[in-house]
Formats: sequence, structure tokens, C-alpha cells
Amino acid sequence: MAGMWMAELSERSGVPVATIKFYLREKLLPAGKATGATRASYDEGHVHRLRLIRALVGVGGLGLDRVHAVLAAVDDTKADLHEVLASAHQQLSPLPESEVSEESRRQVAALVRRKRWQLQPEGRHSEALAAALDAMTAAGQPLDLPSLTTYADAAAMVAEAEIESMSTAMDREDAAIYAVTGTVLAEPVLLALRRMAQEHHSNRRFSTS
Amino acid sequence: MAGMWMAELSERSGVPVATIKFYLREKLLPAGKATGATRASYDEGHVHRLRLIRALVGVGGLGLDRVHAVLAAVDDTKADLHEVLASAHQQLSPLPESEVSEESRRQVAALVRRKRWQLQPEGRHSEALAAALDAMTAAGQPLDLPSLTTYADAAAMVAEAEIESMSTAMDREDAAIYAVTGTVLAEPVLLALRRMAQEHHSNRRFSTS
Repeated sequence: MAGMWMAELSERSGVPVATIKFYLREKLLPAGKATGATRASYDEGHVHRLRLIRALVGVGGLGLDRVHAVLAAVDDTKADLHEVLASAHQQLSPLPESEVSEESRRQVAALVRRKRWQLQPEGRHSEALAAALDAMTAAGQPLDLPSLTTYADAAAMVAEAEIESMSTAMDREDAAIYAVTGTVLAEPVLLALRRMAQEHHSNRRFSTS
Repeated sequence: MAGMWMAELSERSGVPVATIKFYLREKLLPAGKATGATRASYDEGHVHRLRLIRALVGVGGLGLDRVHAVLAAVDDTKADLHEVLASAHQQLSPLPESEVSEESRRQVAALVRRKRWQLQPEGRHSEALAAALDAMTAAGQPLDLPSLTTYADAAAMVAEAEIESMSTAMDREDAAIYAVTGTVLAEPVLLALRRMAQEHHSNRRFSTS
């Protein structure tokens, strides 16, 4: 297939030219094929890569360092599809901004043992959980292990169904897009449902009318 | 008890003087008792009210219009404790910025019927859910009713335990604080747990090592 100029790449991908140039400078997008001194031509691979970057930045809210980490996994020919998915998914959780307490870390470790979850050591999601527990403690509403386990049971119910229904007929870039968008887009759904269910159970328990 | 000047009110509540003055102008905080032409004195009620406003704005992320709605319920002497809780909780969900599709609204209504949830008509959480479903559809990942029901079952499991464990020995302002902070602070916990459970189930299904 014939290559395309920058203008067409922008039109095909829906990404503004200035943004594409920024991604080229940041080496998120590989350079085009030089055709003459000042022009370069791009191909379907560039369109595909731009779609991935937009999903990571836009829906996923990932910063550039985390986008680089996902792209490194996508480009690592020794990584299989599962490893690409895992790497993209792992980057969804930002590292906590402040130091996480040892007590919350121990509580997370106790939960993981109790649930027999197989997780990568020092995973970012576990750190994010410990930080969220610290925030509850700081607000005077610490979460005990039984309550945390109830949340974990509900989360496992959701996650098991999600992973079961996953198609594995994806190329590597689509797998990374799926890991990020599939995870992030359903989050507001889950949170809205929790609020609706709280309203229902509160009505059942307290309503006098 | 003796009243306090603005400086002490600021120190006691942890809210800067400029912010307190802004809340006074916006009528979120009632005026102090005039003592002379330029001074006013404040009491414990002001400290309490400031704690509530900070929880609504800071943890809850509520805009001023929604804070007004919560305070109106707190101050409405005809509302009982349950109604104060319900009103504060309802304000947590912002109204969707764009028009929600009729199809998503119908899907939410079908779910509520199936789950036999008692919700207030035209509730904000249901609208937020419909908007979240629209976003998934727009991203090419529409959620079908069986999947939505799985999410709802998990949300109900969490919410039932949360409402069961709720203390009702609260005054009206603490009830509003609880409805907001108790709901919001646990959200990152639930989302981190879902990501951990996804990692676990993905490892179980796909890992070859």
C-alpha cells in the first residue's frame, strides 16, 4: 500500500498534526520513511499506533512515562499477548504520590493471601489499594479486614466475568487498547451502580414512608 | 460558651480566613453574631458547618450549587435523618453534561426493575449510569444487560454490607458528612481491588509460565 503524508495521517487518525509532531519528538511514534529532505511518508502502522496512544492518554489518563512503558511491552517481540495485556493493565495505576503506610501494606498482603490471588510482586494496583486505605484511615474511617474482604469478593465477581468474556483474537496493539479502555470505561458504571444500590438499601433500612 | 473571632474559627476549623469569608458571601455559612460595627463572633455551630462544607467540597468534589442543596436538606427541620442522608448522597452524582440516550435510559430502567431496586424517580445516580453506558457504546464497547446485571449484583453485595454496618447515632451534619465521605473514600478501594482481581483472573486464564 502506498504511504501517506502527515496531513492524511492526521485525517485518518483524527489526531491534530501538532500532536503527531509532539509524539514523534517524544519517540512515542516511530519516524516515517524519509522521502526527500523535508518530507516523510507514513503507513497503516502509524495509524494503528496513534489509536493506541490516544486510548492510553485519553481514556486511560496515562502520563507519557506510562505510555512509554506500555509501548515498550507492545514492541517487545519476546513478550507474548498475555504479557502485553498485563503490562498495559499494570500501568493504569499511578504510583502513590506519598509514602504508603506499612500497616496498609500488611493489610493488602493479608487480603491477597486470604483470596489466594496470583499477582505480580510489588504490583502497582496493590500499592494504589494501600494508598486508598491510608486515605480512609486519615479521614477517620479506617476499613477493617472483613469489610475489605467484602469489597474484594465483589471485585472478584466482576473481574472473573470480565476475563471470561474476553476475546483473545486481538493483535498486540488492540490488546493494549482493550486492557486500558475495557478497564477504565466500566469504572463509572460500577460506581454509579454502587450508589444506586446504596440508595435502595438505605431506603429499605430507614425509610418510614 | 463564649463566641470566637474569625481568627479562632479559622484555626479551629482548619479553613483559611479568605475561604471562610467566601463561604459567608455565598451564604453557605450563616453570618456570625454582630458585636460592634465591624466584628462578628462565631460559635461551635460554625465550626461544625465548616467541617461539613469542607467534606462536601474536598472529598466529595461537589460544586457550590450541590453544596447548597445538601445544606438546604440539613437545615430543613421537616426532613428526618434518613432524608438528610439521602439528599446528600444524591448530590454526589453530577448531572450528565450531554444528553443521555433513550436506549441507555431504557437499559437502566430494565435493570432497576430486574433488581427490584427502590430508587427515587429521575434520580441522579441513574442518569450518571446511563451516561456511563453511553460512553462505553461510543467507545465501541457496549455493555449488554447480562454484563450490566453482573456489575449490579456486585454493587448490591457491597452496598448491602455498607448500609448494614452504618451507625444511626449521628447528628444531621455528621450524617451528611458520612453519606459523602463514606461513599467517595471507598471508591478507589473498590477500583484497585477490581484491577487486582482482573490481574489474578487474567493470570489464571492466560499465563503460560
